[in-house]
Amino acid sequence: MTELFSESINGGSEFSVVDLSSFGIREGISETIVSTGLESPNAAPIGIIVKGGKPFVRLFKGSHTWANVFKEKHLAANIVYDPLLFVRSTFFDLETSEFDYMPARGLSFPILKKAAAWVVFECINIKNTGQALVADLIPIEAGFNEDNRKDLPVPNRGFNAVLEATVHATRYKLSGDEKYLELIRHYETLASKCGGESEKKAMKLLYEVLGL
Amino acid sequence: MTELFSESINGGSEFSVVDLSSFGIREGISETIVSTGLESPNAAPIGIIVKGGKPFVRLFKGSHTWANVFKEKHLAANIVYDPLLFVRSTFFDLETSEFDYMPARGLSFPILKKAAAWVVFECINIKNTGQALVADLIPIEAGFNEDNRKDLPVPNRGFNAVLEATVHATRYKLSGDEKYLELIRHYETLASKCGGESEKKAMKLLYEVLGL
Repeated sequence: MTELFSESINGGSEFSVVDLSSFGIREGISETIVSTGLESPNAAPIGIIVKGGKPFVRLFKGSHTWANVFKEKHLAANIVYDPLLFVRSTFFDLETSEFDYMPARGLSFPILKKAAAWVVFECINIKNTGQALVADLIPIEAGFNEDNRKDLPVPNRGFNAVLEATVHATRYKLSGDEKYLELIRHYETLASKCGGESEKKAMKLLYEVLGL
Repeated sequence: MTELFSESINGGSEFSVVDLSSFGIREGISETIVSTGLESPNAAPIGIIVKGGKPFVRLFKGSHTWANVFKEKHLAANIVYDPLLFVRSTFFDLETSEFDYMPARGLSFPILKKAAAWVVFECINIKNTGQALVADLIPIEAGFNEDNRKDLPVPNRGFNAVLEATVHATRYKLSGDEKYLELIRHYETLASKCGGESEKKAMKLLYEVLGL
């Protein structure tokens, strides 16, 4: 925990003046790994959506993240550059040892040790919309992990291909539609051509999960 | 120039011990914007390839970058997070005012003001292979621009989609094959759904360039 630099943002006011973009979260959909669960930590890739300057999130019913947010009304968005962690947290439970705990509002929030930055949000205006939960997000605590920022991230089509393949893999698991397998194979080629060791390991694991 | 922190790496020895990954360049293909031209600065998106720890580059015959590297034996790789700059530097000449100059070996190398980091390389073992030039790269000078690192980059499928669309746009321009237009339209949808203002502007410019 010593290498973590934390910055308290506000007291939880709804009128936050935090510049979320400093923490990597900007207009559009930021692909983060969300950690939740004050008692038993959980992590899953989830997009933090910002529209007109307002951050919100859409969580699918039945997931651990969905259950934890429903109960605890908080989540942490972790900025992660490790493609393998995206695939692992999509299909498996991470180890408890992969989490650190950050104090905020007298509670202790799980965040990922591998995060370059993290933002703890309060979830308000929670709405249930059939298949999903939609919540507005108020940042209450954020920080950088300077150790994980040392290696500057660089655009890499292989890394991007792992993200796309993971999205399509979850859709394939839900629908069984073979068109997703074709896309996944396309992105596997790209990850293999443009990625490094982590991208190759990530795609190998994805193929194992899908039985390819 | 005051905000630029430069770090001399070595005297140009072929046995460089630089950890290029600190500057964002790692195993696989790093998508950078390469600047060249001691007299008249030029910039174009080019992948820096690292295989087995050795960086090299492949440049297509006829481009400004190709001509400059052939003549001057140096190039600078700029780490850039601005999708619009990727599209602009693919299809247009940048303004002279968009470059800064970094001293190395008594010369003055053009680098991009928008770069979060940059590495000047010497190009050695230059080989002409029909359509392209292949050169091994020796890093001789590198630096960060702390101002441009302030806003942490976050994985964004919209940004990634602009990169993919740009790659396919150059292939379309060369071949006229309509299959590329289909891919570009797919990535436009993704950029529009997941990207922010910069991604939307970048795709708009790309569509203009292609007459779509």
